[in-house]
Formats: sequence, C-alpha cells, structure tokens
Amino acid sequence: MNKRLMQLVLGLVLIGAAPLSAQKPKPTPPNPIQKEYQAIADRIVAAATADSAAWNKLAELTDGFGNRLSGSDALERAIDWILARMKSEGLANAHTEPVMVPKWVRGHEKAELLQPRYLNMPMLGLGGSVATPKGGIEAEVLVVSSFDDLKAHAAEAKGKIVLFDVPFTNYGQTVAYRGIGANESSRVGAVATLIRTVGPFSMRNPHTGAMAPYDTTVKAIPAAAITLEDAAMLHRMQNRGQKIVVRLEMEAQTLPDAPSRNVMAELVGREKPDEIVVFGGHIDSWDVGTGAMDDGGGMVIAWEAIRLLKQLGLTPRRTIRAVGWTNEENGGRGGQAYRDAHRAELPKHIAAIESDGGTFKFRGFGFTGNDSAYTVLRQIGKLLKPLGADTVFVGGGGSDIGPIMGEGVPGMSHNVDGTRYFWYHHSEADNIDKIDPREFAENVAAMAVMAYVLADLPVALPRGGKPVR
Amino acid sequence: MNKRLMQLVLGLVLIGAAPLSAQKPKPTPPNPIQKEYQAIADRIVAAATADSAAWNKLAELTDGFGNRLSGSDALERAIDWILARMKSEGLANAHTEPVMVPKWVRGHEKAELLQPRYLNMPMLGLGGSVATPKGGIEAEVLVVSSFDDLKAHAAEAKGKIVLFDVPFTNYGQTVAYRGIGANESSRVGAVATLIRTVGPFSMRNPHTGAMAPYDTTVKAIPAAAITLEDAAMLHRMQNRGQKIVVRLEMEAQTLPDAPSRNVMAELVGREKPDEIVVFGGHIDSWDVGTGAMDDGGGMVIAWEAIRLLKQLGLTPRRTIRAVGWTNEENGGRGGQAYRDAHRAELPKHIAAIESDGGTFKFRGFGFTGNDSAYTVLRQIGKLLKPLGADTVFVGGGGSDIGPIMGEGVPGMSHNVDGTRYFWYHHSEADNIDKIDPREFAENVAAMAVMAYVLADLPVALPRGGKPVR
Repeated sequence: MNKRLMQLVLGLVLIGAAPLSAQKPKPTPPNPIQKEYQAIADRIVAAATADSAAWNKLAELTDGFGNRLSGSDALERAIDWILARMKSEGLANAHTEPVMVPKWVRGHEKAELLQPRYLNMPMLGLGGSVATPKGGIEAEVLVVSSFDDLKAHAAEAKGKIVLFDVPFTNYGQTVAYRGIGANESSRVGAVATLIRTVGPFSMRNPHTGAMAPYDTTVKAIPAAAITLEDAAMLHRMQNRGQKIVVRLEMEAQTLPDAPSRNVMAELVGREKPDEIVVFGGHIDSWDVGTGAMDDGGGMVIAWEAIRLLKQLGLTPRRTIRAVGWTNEENGGRGGQAYRDAHRAELPKHIAAIESDGGTFKFRGFGFTGNDSAYTVLRQIGKLLKPLGADTVFVGGGGSDIGPIMGEGVPGMSHNVDGTRYFWYHHSEADNIDKIDPREFAENVAAMAVMAYVLADLPVALPRGGKPVR
Repeated sequence: MNKRLMQLVLGLVLIGAAPLSAQKPKPTPPNPIQKEYQAIADRIVAAATADSAAWNKLAELTDGFGNRLSGSDALERAIDWILARMKSEGLANAHTEPVMVPKWVRGHEKAELLQPRYLNMPMLGLGGSVATPKGGIEAEVLVVSSFDDLKAHAAEAKGKIVLFDVPFTNYGQTVAYRGIGANESSRVGAVATLIRTVGPFSMRNPHTGAMAPYDTTVKAIPAAAITLEDAAMLHRMQNRGQKIVVRLEMEAQTLPDAPSRNVMAELVGREKPDEIVVFGGHIDSWDVGTGAMDDGGGMVIAWEAIRLLKQLGLTPRRTIRAVGWTNEENGGRGGQAYRDAHRAELPKHIAAIESDGGTFKFRGFGFTGNDSAYTVLRQIGKLLKPLGADTVFVGGGGSDIGPIMGEGVPGMSHNVDGTRYFWYHHSEADNIDKIDPREFAENVAAMAVMAYVLADLPVALPRGGKPVR
C-alpha cells in the first residue's frame, strides 16, 4: 500500500511534466491522494459548513470569558470551560498540562496631552512595560519617524518622551518600534516612549503587544501605544513648531509567574495511535477585546475539527491532537512546556499545524519541511479546491509550534486572508463580529481535511533533510 | 449675451436628441457652458489640486481646537480663529453673526455589564439625553431587534433597560432608534434605553447623535449608544437564556442656551454684488473625535474655494459667500439664524450649496429646484469631468440650507463617496487622517467651479415653479 501510493505520487510528477496541447490543455487528472481522499474531504467540507456550530462555540468562549491574558482568572476559567466541554463532547484524553506563565498587569493608565491643548488620548501600555513613577511623568514630546531619525535628534531627546510616529509598512518591520523603542529611547536619555499603534488603519483604537525585554544596560522606561490619529496629530504639531507636553500615568507591573495550562484532546488513531498530528492555536490573548481572531478562533478551529471528525466517524490511522497553548502572547511558555512534556513523543509527531494568523477567508497552508514531504502536501492541498484555496506555500509554522519544530517536527501554518488582521490585532476591536460564520466553518473544514489526511497517510510524512525553499 | 447663452442651451438639447450612429457614436460636442467656462474650470482644478493647502487648513482647525459641540469654548475659539484667518487672507466681509444655541453637556458617563460577567462597555450618551439618577441605574436588560419586537415584548420591559440591537440598513431607517428609542421604551415602562450604534462597521467605537425631543406624555429616560460588538454580544447572551444586568451612569444635562455665531466671508461680485451664491458646511460637531469630515471639512471646502478664486483673480458677476453655520448637530439654529438675518436678501440668493455628507471622493452634486435650472446645472456639471464626476443628481440640499430653501432658494448638495461615512460619523474616529488630501482638494475644486459658474452665469438660475423629480 505504501509502495503503491509512492508510485502513484511519482507517476503524477511524470504526468505533470508531459507537454500539454497549447490549444486545449487537458484537465489535470486527480493525483493519488485526491483519488484516495477527495470523497472524504468533500464529506468533511459539507459537514463543517452545514451550520454555524464552530462560530457559535467561539462566541460562547469569547462572550463568556472576554479577553484572557496570561495570569488572569478569565484565562483559567476559559480553560476550565474548554476542558469540561471537550469531555462533554466525548473527546478522548481531554486534559490540561501545567505551565508557569509570566504575569504582567496593566493597572490604571492614562496619556494626556497638556500642550498645545488638552486631550485625553486613548492609549495602551505595552506588555512588559514598567510603571511610571507614582504621580506620572509630565514631559515635552520629541516626535521621530524612525530609529535613524531618533539618532539624528539624539541630543534633543534627554528628559523627553520620545514618540515614534512610524507609518505601518508590514508587521515584521513596524513591530520593531514596539519591541525596542523603549530601549533605544532610554539610550538617548528619554524618560518614556510612545509608539504609533502597529497597524495600517485605525478608528482611534490603540493596540498593545509585547515589548522586547528591557536592555539591562539602560534605564527601563515606560512604554505605551497611542492611536494612529493622535500620533500623526502630534507629529503635525511638532512640524508647526508647537511645544508638545504629555502627562503619562501607568501602574503596569510584572508579578511573580502564575500557574496556567495547555489544554488538549484527541482523536485516537486506529492503527498507530502513538504517531501524532498536533494542531491548534493559543488560548491566551491580550487584555483587550476578546481575543476572537487572535487566537481563540485558531484554537477553536482545531478543536472543532476533531469534534467534527469524531461526529463523522472518521478515525485516521494515527492520532490527531488539538491543543490550546497558553501564553503565546507574552512568553511563549505554552509551546515550550508542550515540547518539554512531550519530548519523548516528538520523534513520532508527524506534523504540527498552527492557526494564528486570523480566521478570515481560507487561503491555503504554509509548510516548512523537506522536499518529499512538500510533494505530498501539495497533493493534499488539492483536496481543498472546493474551498477555493488548494495551494500549499513554502514556509510555515507558528510561535507555539516553534519549539517542537526546533526538534525536527515538520511545521505548517493555516493561512487566511490577512487584509484586515492588523486592523483588529491586540485591540478592543478583536471581537467575533469580525469573523464570518461561513468562512470560519471553511477554516474548520480545511484544518480537519489536512489533519485527517496527514494522520491517515499510509506512509508517514517524511521528515529531516534539507527544508524546501 | 443672455439670449445667446439661452439659445446655445436650447441648441444643445436639440443636438442631444439627434440620432447617433450605432457604430461610431460621435463625441458629445461641448455644451454652451463648457464652451464658456471649461478653461476656467480647468484652471481652478489645476490650482486646487496643486498642493495640500486645504487639507492643511482643516488639519490646523481640527488639531488646534478638537471637537466643537454647540455651547463649548472650543467651538467659539475655532470660530474666532476662522474669522481671524479669513481676515488675514484678505477675504471680503469676513464677519460673524450671533446665534443662541442649545447647550447640552455630557459629563461623566459609564455603562457596565454586571451579569453574566463584568465588562466596562464603551458608550456615548445620546445628545439631548437626561442624566440617570445620582448613583446610576442598575437594571436587567431586555434586548429587542425593532420597534415591533419591543411591542411584542412590551409586558417584559417594565423596570428594565431596553437595548435596541438593530443592524444598520441605511441611516434614514436605522437612526429612528436613536431618535425615538427612549420615548418608545419609556412608553412600555423601561427605566433607560441603549441603542446599538448607528453605523455599519465598528472597531468597538460608539457613535453619538441627537435624539428627538422627549415625548412629554411619558417619563424622560436616559439614552445611550453602545458598540455594535457589545450590542450583538448582549443579544447572544439573551438568546442563550442568560440574565443580563447593566449599570448605567450618566450626568448629561441641558443648560441654558449659549451664544454662538455663524461665520462667513465673501468674494464680492463684479456686476451684481447683491446677488448671492451661498455655500458652506457646519462648524460645530459632536463632542467626540475632531469633526473633520462632519463637518469641519465641508466648511473648509467652501472657505478654501473662495480663497482660491480670489488668489486666481477670478471675480464672478455675483457674490459668492462661504459660511460656517453653527449648531447643525443639535438644534439647527445656525441655519435658522442665517435665514432670519438675511431674509431681505433671500430673493437674490441664486443658489445655496451645502457640503455635509463627508469629504471623500467627489461624486457630483444634487439639486432641488425647477426643470430649467436643472438643465443649466447639468451643463455646469459637465465642467467637472476632469474630476471624474460630471453628474448633477435630482434631489439636493442640507440641513443648514433647509431654512432658506424653504423660502424658495434653489438648494444643492455636494456629494461624495459615502462608503465609509457612517464608520466614522459622530464617533472618536472622525479625524483628518480619514480624509485624503488629493480628494479633499478635488472637492474644493468642484465647489469652486460650481459656485463660480453659478455666480457668473449671464442669466441667474431660474427659481420657483415645480421642482424637477
């Protein structure tokens, strides 16, 4: 059986290489995996999209517990609820695993423009920030547009609040200011730093997110995000030669680590239950909005995928494990704890899939692993043509599965349309109304099909060797 | 000259009626107004779009004074600034005219969900609302989806806070709940009312706006808007059978009327200075955001239009008057005071144009007046083809020019793309970053061309008679 499938896979590669008629390209014949699994995939898609069960479950979670920052009661109560619900659904091996997580608490905070006119500015302290001294910091503001611009004006920064008014290009680039803006500002003598919210569009809603650890060679100064609107306004005021004075009050503090948990359940494999396809998202969120698309949705998609497979009586050869990792946002301790707790199993982890890029229209999967595995995955991807996205892209993973990918587990990401992801990300706007029930169901279908087929393949996905690029 | 133009207009109508070749439609020959004014229009467009002067002026206004609710110091200081700036630009007859305006003040306000879980909900009291009793109102919530739904559940409303969770269809329809939601709720014994914000999209930003006057036959109860997100969530909670308890605190009050002003300046006509084309927008706003698109932008467009015409040395036959009306949002007293102060002049008001639908991509003008006037206006509209919108639609006006339209002045509206207007409207999100400098300049161009040609026509725009439909 293994051999036959491999021969078919190679056969397909040869067929693909044959010259096609320029006038009438023949339709691509189904690949071996399509022949084997298309009917099952179609059944999964039909069942997942028949109702709004997944969306309703996510709504119960986010309505019921709100946001879920590491160390909060809300997070732990949400995990309790998930565990109980997994059990009530009859899912196998539903359990939690302990993780100690950082506990940062925001406390009261306020940013007020005092000059040239009074304005209470919506703001969010950055995760990990220290507090201001009691009574706050009142200082003149220096607006800069980049790290280079800060260097060029370093002599003017002393004793001031540095505001980085950096327009969003892409997350990787722009988030650097959230990461090390405080360190770089402190280095030139600033007393606090503000950043323009990391995002391309705003309805005057600030976004939070983690800072990099404080550089121990400079003074730790408080850091917060203000809105795009206000950052741009302060910049215009500076350009007009106006003196800008801001009063910043923050009570943020980092408390001792607190207990949390990863939560998981399984669909146990019928032939090789010790071989595992693991997938999921993170159950923690920032302390704003309700963490619906980041990343309650990612967690619920995997959970619903195994519930659906169970409901359909589809038991693959290997085990599928759906995990809600804790503490992705400000520590990554859940992913690390999973690696440590499951180290002995990792050689039998066939693949890991993370959904943490939002829960919008499905766009395919991303993959990091070797060439042979990529060939197989591209064939599996074709099963998802009914969902309008049958591509598997090169490059995939996620921060929760990063630690086990580091141990050799092939990693994948669940990709969706990202147009509005950073509109809502880490802000009060991340709520379930931004998620379309039909699109959400299609994501459940895509993840269920991918996990099922990976878990059922006659030959385990090859691992090791040089990753495809 | 008058006769010639009229003959040419009639000539165009005949040409327009001639059969066209099915194969190769000839390009429409320029209409008489295009022949006369296209070169001037092109000059105006080129000058208006050569820089971001208009956008910068609006930024100075909104950055400098923030929002400008009737009765506030910010509004009066903004008017002082406009007047001084108009004078410094050398505009003719820059002055203000006194208007007594309602003074409603929001004070402290808060809406907290207490059951089934705690949540501090972003909210905005509705303009004109009474306060809650000192200490607030704590009550169970009844969620309804329409006035009919309220009637169907009238027996359950007594002593409760009624929440209208009504999805946005269009403004005219949905705003009814803001208008009379409190009256209808009070009629069935509710102690307060909440509405889902009137808007199609939310980043958890509530929108305010005026209520209709309280029905004196029922108790006046406090009314506020919560976000789309929270309204939908409370509705889901009710559907799940959960008991919902909210605590509402509002200190809103209506103080005695306060002095405000309409502000205006002119480009005095070279032949018939006593005949007037009046245009503008309202300078007041709600007490959130900075009232950039509603309606600082509308006011600045007209102001910039006359400044630009003056700069270009284009003096029309008649006078063009740019007005910033006060108190459009919660009283309409500015428009009424203009009518009363200028009553003697109204027979010589050629036309009134209001810009109060946002400041996005220009889409044409709307017109309310007779058929002959409409024929002329459609010809003027063609001058704006370079701006991509050369249509004059049937139906136009605005709340500030409503009172003089009631006295027979032909009325027009400046129309723009409205896709996102109600995203920002009456909320913290109404800021200048939502306005594109190029689009804003094009709006100045469109208004300058329309006002200039209306003021320069050899024959005044005909008025009276049956309005075109």
